[in-house]
Amino acid sequence: MSGRVFLVGAGPGDPELLTLKAAKVLAAAEVVLYDSLVSQEVLALVSSEALLLDVGKRAGKKLLTQDEINDLMLSYARQQRLVVRLKGGDPLLFGRAGEEMESLRRAGVDFEIVPGITAAVGAAAAAKITLTDRRVASQVLFTTYSRERAGWLNWAAVTPETTIAIYMPGIHYGEVGARLMENGLAGETPCVVASLATRAEQQMSWSTIAALSDEDQLPAPSLLLVGRVASQKPRGWSGRLHTALFRLNERRELEPPAKWSQ
Amino acid sequence: MSGRVFLVGAGPGDPELLTLKAAKVLAAAEVVLYDSLVSQEVLALVSSEALLLDVGKRAGKKLLTQDEINDLMLSYARQQRLVVRLKGGDPLLFGRAGEEMESLRRAGVDFEIVPGITAAVGAAAAAKITLTDRRVASQVLFTTYSRERAGWLNWAAVTPETTIAIYMPGIHYGEVGARLMENGLAGETPCVVASLATRAEQQMSWSTIAALSDEDQLPAPSLLLVGRVASQKPRGWSGRLHTALFRLNERRELEPPAKWSQ
Repeated sequence: MSGRVFLVGAGPGDPELLTLKAAKVLAAAEVVLYDSLVSQEVLALVSSEALLLDVGKRAGKKLLTQDEINDLMLSYARQQRLVVRLKGGDPLLFGRAGEEMESLRRAGVDFEIVPGITAAVGAAAAAKITLTDRRVASQVLFTTYSRERAGWLNWAAVTPETTIAIYMPGIHYGEVGARLMENGLAGETPCVVASLATRAEQQMSWSTIAALSDEDQLPAPSLLLVGRVASQKPRGWSGRLHTALFRLNERRELEPPAKWSQ
Repeated sequence: MSGRVFLVGAGPGDPELLTLKAAKVLAAAEVVLYDSLVSQEVLALVSSEALLLDVGKRAGKKLLTQDEINDLMLSYARQQRLVVRLKGGDPLLFGRAGEEMESLRRAGVDFEIVPGITAAVGAAAAAKITLTDRRVASQVLFTTYSRERAGWLNWAAVTPETTIAIYMPGIHYGEVGARLMENGLAGETPCVVASLATRAEQQMSWSTIAALSDEDQLPAPSLLLVGRVASQKPRGWSGRLHTALFRLNERRELEPPAKWSQ
């Protein structure tokens, strides 16, 4: 019998956006293999007795190959340890969970997926824009852009009724905007660049895909939400965090709920 | 000054898949307007002193129109109440949050979005399949199917490298499969039907889009995950819940983490 492995989504950054299950698994973990996109606030939820290993990237340089990460997971699982593989956002969206699940299955190691709030959903919530809207956006495409994989894209299909969420590690925004226009989207299609969304340092730029080339690059990770849903920049938008009414460690009490008089 | 409104995602059903923030907001809420897709286990997290109002659908019949729901939200907010609008999954994905945000903005009521795990991500986690995979699935489309809106679909664009998650309220699976094939997907494209995923009653059928017409209809809400990522039916798959190593109310203790010997 081997240990158990949990592939866990750390969410977009704000530790309050972890699931209850993820928080519980992190508190119980003996070994945590984490990616560099995971925020310090989330790592603070791991027991101080657990072994914390950064297996991510630094400045574009991989610390470990995917095979090495798989081997590490298996080796701790075989030592009967409770292992957490912790990924930014959701493990099943741009997280390489497919390869890790395969290696666990081949080795006969039982595992469980604990989903997380993916970056695009966190960004939309922080920007207070919806991803679908029965009036203007019937569906949403979660995709990624990198220069090497540009030939593999399938954006020609994209209509004005499709919201597009583009995960883009370190790419110049103008390049993505140009590619979207080449694929038929109008230059005035609205978009929002969200950098470090849901974290205290979050920044957002409201723009159009034609104007993206004039936007300053914001700190990575950033993503782009494109479509009619992004047309409404909220009044009084400050570019700062809007979502701070509750904070995890603040323990600010709300007034107790009064008995509702029927 | 008016009350505060939170548009909160209840996640796919398993109450452990709520975010920490959602659980906190539910415990503090004075008024909760909830959809019928929200599970009883999640509603159990609401304070017993709060006013709980079902504003959803019953057997296809709407209890309240969208305008009536908006008016209710505003009326409680104006009474200085802490109001939660609770939706299954994530509020920004097929949740009509766009219309509710508009009505709140027009009324000058401050609000916040608390994202949730959307049904498709919950279903993929429960089925232990990934949604993207750099080898076979570069992106994922979250879409919906209903007979009335079939003309509005844009699936012709869909390639074998795109995973498709189809939210389908009460539609015959064979009809969706036929529509996917009309749009160019091969009949042998693998898929999984997930019914009530992440709940104790969850059921899944592993199939292909051509064979969907032979599948029994499972209890709603169900959704369909289509694409190469769905090709691996796990060995020993029982059709039952795989994700029950931790349960919220069980308080089953793990062995305490041993100090890792370096």
